[in-house]
Amino acid sequence: MTRTVLESKTKTVVIGFDEPFCVIGERINPTGRKKLAAELEMGDFSTVEKDALEQVACGATVLDINSGAVFSNKMAEDPRYADNNFVEPPLMAELIARVQAITDVPLCIDSSVPAALEAGLAAAEGRPLLNSVTGEEERLELVLPLVKKYNVPVVAISNDDTGISEDPDVRFEVAKKIVQRAADFGIPAHDIVVDPLVMPVGAMATAGRQVFTLVARLREELGVNTTCGASNISFGLPNRHGVNAAFLPMAIGAGMTSAIMNPVRSVEMEAIRAANLLMDHDANGMEWIKLAKVLEAVKEGASFAEASAAAASGGGRGRRRARG
Amino acid sequence: MTRTVLESKTKTVVIGFDEPFCVIGERINPTGRKKLAAELEMGDFSTVEKDALEQVACGATVLDINSGAVFSNKMAEDPRYADNNFVEPPLMAELIARVQAITDVPLCIDSSVPAALEAGLAAAEGRPLLNSVTGEEERLELVLPLVKKYNVPVVAISNDDTGISEDPDVRFEVAKKIVQRAADFGIPAHDIVVDPLVMPVGAMATAGRQVFTLVARLREELGVNTTCGASNISFGLPNRHGVNAAFLPMAIGAGMTSAIMNPVRSVEMEAIRAANLLMDHDANGMEWIKLAKVLEAVKEGASFAEASAAAASGGGRGRRRARG
Repeated sequence: MTRTVLESKTKTVVIGFDEPFCVIGERINPTGRKKLAAELEMGDFSTVEKDALEQVACGATVLDINSGAVFSNKMAEDPRYADNNFVEPPLMAELIARVQAITDVPLCIDSSVPAALEAGLAAAEGRPLLNSVTGEEERLELVLPLVKKYNVPVVAISNDDTGISEDPDVRFEVAKKIVQRAADFGIPAHDIVVDPLVMPVGAMATAGRQVFTLVARLREELGVNTTCGASNISFGLPNRHGVNAAFLPMAIGAGMTSAIMNPVRSVEMEAIRAANLLMDHDANGMEWIKLAKVLEAVKEGASFAEASAAAASGGGRGRRRARG
Repeated sequence: MTRTVLESKTKTVVIGFDEPFCVIGERINPTGRKKLAAELEMGDFSTVEKDALEQVACGATVLDINSGAVFSNKMAEDPRYADNNFVEPPLMAELIARVQAITDVPLCIDSSVPAALEAGLAAAEGRPLLNSVTGEEERLELVLPLVKKYNVPVVAISNDDTGISEDPDVRFEVAKKIVQRAADFGIPAHDIVVDPLVMPVGAMATAGRQVFTLVARLREELGVNTTCGASNISFGLPNRHGVNAAFLPMAIGAGMTSAIMNPVRSVEMEAIRAANLLMDHDANGMEWIKLAKVLEAVKEGASFAEASAAAASGGGRGRRRARG
């Protein structure tokens, strides 16, 4: 049974075939969040800290930390800020320090800049997940030595120098190549978490089936855990949460063991908790029963984050009368 | 590819591996609905007619017709009414006539009384589904000749004279025995729709996994379509709809092709429509987009049945301002 072990200073999280689905909170990511990027540029980490606490309260057991900020104002004053290699490494270290100071979950160090990955590895306590390597030759040669040096697990994304293939068999072969290349570095398959790449089902009708088939193959043939950017599946469609809430249980049923996603959305978290229960990964249904109480509080007007935080602290606070 | 063909006078519905999930509406069933039983006893079919129309509007493509009524008042006056063999056959014929008069979907004739099944077969137009045979010797000998005589498909429930086994392998063997016995009567496997029996996951933690494994085996090894009483899975748990809404997509991903269920519940129907989309059984996402509009109307205050009926009739009626 494949087990990918992540650690913070005090907590161990196992991504595995016989474990509850691992929710990796995606919110701490300035890419595409202009307001957050502007705050970080001013040295304001309050949103980061709020997002860290909320995501953990809502059920994230790992937090993704992405340092992909563009500092437009500083860039105007100092051209060095146009270079991610200049911006990201210190930002990654600072983000990790801030988050580690207030939460105890393992982290996922997320950057396209190898120096930022290494800065993150130096700053993170325990055994973080590195995000990511691809099948591109340059990435393999840059990232796998870091994975080996720090003895950490890594997310492997199934694209290579030819891009992202629409053919799932090609994406499987890319994953296989990464696993083999990692083995050459002495990195075991159980430390590779493959992202088979989820296409939008609105653009490619077979996208869902592709993922379900790929996940089963990756698990059976390569013995690896899997992850994905779950919300991609519903891109461009109306009622996206409804698509995500069916996709996640189906992916879990097919063998998917983690996702990088927004845990502050109750619809998706409800689907995952139900899937854990149905996979016999929720002893005595304790997590389901706990969630049901949180959702009752949400019906009464609390936000999912408020109600989850109140439940986590053991109190009835966070419940409010329905608004409006 | 296994295809189970059902017909009304004018419509064909195929239950199959490459078809959208077949929703068999369960509402027309006086068992456990005392008010409905009392209405039927007085010859009042208004609820039956309303339930028939609502279920079809909400997405049922087959309607289950169960004649299991207990007529307590008549029983007090005439002891013959204590016998289901006296009550059910004429009631089944009447229920079918009423429903056929106002809807055009194929029917599922549901009774534990063989004479009621035969009365239903005589009354139904087209090619109804017979519900059900079990692995019990007496049932096999009574029901399979009817299936052969009328050339209809049949639901096969995986229990036998020893009861319902908690061991999924035993339930598989019971299904296999029914398929083999049917073959002796000249009934092909594609006319058998196996119900592998869904246990409550709250009472048996492996209940979900059992069904997913069984459905895959039934499909691969026996080549049969499958069905279930979907809501059994969540019996006894809080927030049952949330469990059902994850179970249905997972079962569909595992290969389940139909369920007997309440289609007037939007949560479950949303999960099924999303699963159809993700299985590439919703060309151009047309059904999903249609449902998204219906759910918008529900948010504005319409009931799911009202909004579905309005969408089916092509109008914007059924939308109401939010109440309260």
